[in-house]
Amino acid sequence: MVKKVGFVGLGIMGLPMAGNLLKVGYELCVYDVVPTAVEQAVAQGATAAASPKEVAQNSEVIITMLPSEAIAEQVILGSDGLVEGMAPGAAVVDMSTISPIGAKKIAAALKEKGLNMIDAPVSGGDVGAKEASLSIMAGGDEATFQKVLPLLQKMGKNVNLVGDSGAGQVSKACNQIVVGLAIAAVAEALVFAKKNGVDPAKVRNALLGGFAQSRVLELHGQRMLDRNFTPGGKVHLHKKDTEIAVEAAKQLGIYLPCNALLSQLWNSVTAMGGSQWDHSSIVKCLEMLSNTEVTPG
Amino acid sequence: MVKKVGFVGLGIMGLPMAGNLLKVGYELCVYDVVPTAVEQAVAQGATAAASPKEVAQNSEVIITMLPSEAIAEQVILGSDGLVEGMAPGAAVVDMSTISPIGAKKIAAALKEKGLNMIDAPVSGGDVGAKEASLSIMAGGDEATFQKVLPLLQKMGKNVNLVGDSGAGQVSKACNQIVVGLAIAAVAEALVFAKKNGVDPAKVRNALLGGFAQSRVLELHGQRMLDRNFTPGGKVHLHKKDTEIAVEAAKQLGIYLPCNALLSQLWNSVTAMGGSQWDHSSIVKCLEMLSNTEVTPG
Repeated sequence: MVKKVGFVGLGIMGLPMAGNLLKVGYELCVYDVVPTAVEQAVAQGATAAASPKEVAQNSEVIITMLPSEAIAEQVILGSDGLVEGMAPGAAVVDMSTISPIGAKKIAAALKEKGLNMIDAPVSGGDVGAKEASLSIMAGGDEATFQKVLPLLQKMGKNVNLVGDSGAGQVSKACNQIVVGLAIAAVAEALVFAKKNGVDPAKVRNALLGGFAQSRVLELHGQRMLDRNFTPGGKVHLHKKDTEIAVEAAKQLGIYLPCNALLSQLWNSVTAMGGSQWDHSSIVKCLEMLSNTEVTPG
Repeated sequence: MVKKVGFVGLGIMGLPMAGNLLKVGYELCVYDVVPTAVEQAVAQGATAAASPKEVAQNSEVIITMLPSEAIAEQVILGSDGLVEGMAPGAAVVDMSTISPIGAKKIAAALKEKGLNMIDAPVSGGDVGAKEASLSIMAGGDEATFQKVLPLLQKMGKNVNLVGDSGAGQVSKACNQIVVGLAIAAVAEALVFAKKNGVDPAKVRNALLGGFAQSRVLELHGQRMLDRNFTPGGKVHLHKKDTEIAVEAAKQLGIYLPCNALLSQLWNSVTAMGGSQWDHSSIVKCLEMLSNTEVTPG
């Protein structure tokens, strides 16, 4: 049973996830470049370390939750990184969203030194992080997954090992393709309704009972009607995820025309100043180009 | 209470819908250009008429379920059409999928003669027609809707008056935008997974528990994995519906970039010979251009 856990990356996601591990009694050693984030974790019972290396020296399993692939690679493999402090057989669980290719590369570099990695990106946002209801999509070997599974189950509800290294990141990219296009589709439908003189709230309601039903229609459809673009899932993060799929598609020869268009729509929302808005704000660029707004009525 | 009901259009949808009305005791007078379809309805207790006009002469409410706007207009307003036989105050319920503008035009022509119309297109396919579980999206005036509601409730489960004339067709177009793009999104995600070497069945399963959940991911995702393209909802019908939205967007100045792309994908499946396949077969053109197939494993 794992008891000593490291945690690097105490942002809007990482801090509440670390908090959920502290609540159930894990000994947590943490690191972040932002001192106030470290202080908040320490106030909940964590021990502060001076570097990722020092976190690794005190942990059987180290969780990372970082904002980009470059930072994840630096924290795990760089100077003063986890790799310099990990004991033989120790494991990294990288819960950041990075590219599948990047995840495989980092896992391979660790494996060469007898160290293990699970890529385990999440869906569910800061609310899911706080409520420990994240969906966690994991890639890696079965033995390491079983070792870290009890930890993951304290942070999420729907935890799946999808395949080997990188498979978690592949699933996350798939998730973001489906969710992003569902948002765009609901936005187009509500704009179409409004511009045709039909109440978009009634259309959303009529569609929910049939084959068009989805969590996105239910929750983000309502957000669009309510003009509630306070995140939730931020545009700039979903944009990054969509671009990961675009880039992987380019490298592997995958035809993803809808996802490519989605990427353009994120560019448009960003141009409107919406990088920090909720991703349901994709409706705003469709509204602008249709000269309407999907308010109820 | 309406007792004498007309039914014109006894195809794959209309025949089982008429059957559901006969089962609960409505007196049905029917017409179709295909004699064997009429014979099947008569065998279930319907009376055959020689023309739409004669159907109207024997009915308080006439339901139409026809394959195109041109045919619906001909049957309702043309020579020997319903309009020539309807008594003052009688109503047409057009359950065909046609354009919102076409529906408004037909309703206006009837109104000039003191006749009523509800546009009430459906979602749910032939299975929904047989099981009386269709989603029915209605447009028209409240009094006429209330008059025909008991009939609609014998054919569907989720019956909504969304607005005035045309609003049912607008909702249907919205439904098809959302469903069509959800199919394309799930197809892109599964192709992405497979080409990344990850089992698309496991990805579908992992995604179902989270924010990517939808009826389309559940049912059509499974169809793609099972290579089950037996309809269900046919490509050529969904293609027609998508083109209705494209055309209305053109006329009203609505920016629907994803729906426009969807229209191109239907062209591609059609070019592959798939006009009669289930609409989940949109995955086949993405597979062809990615040189893969989303079989499990």
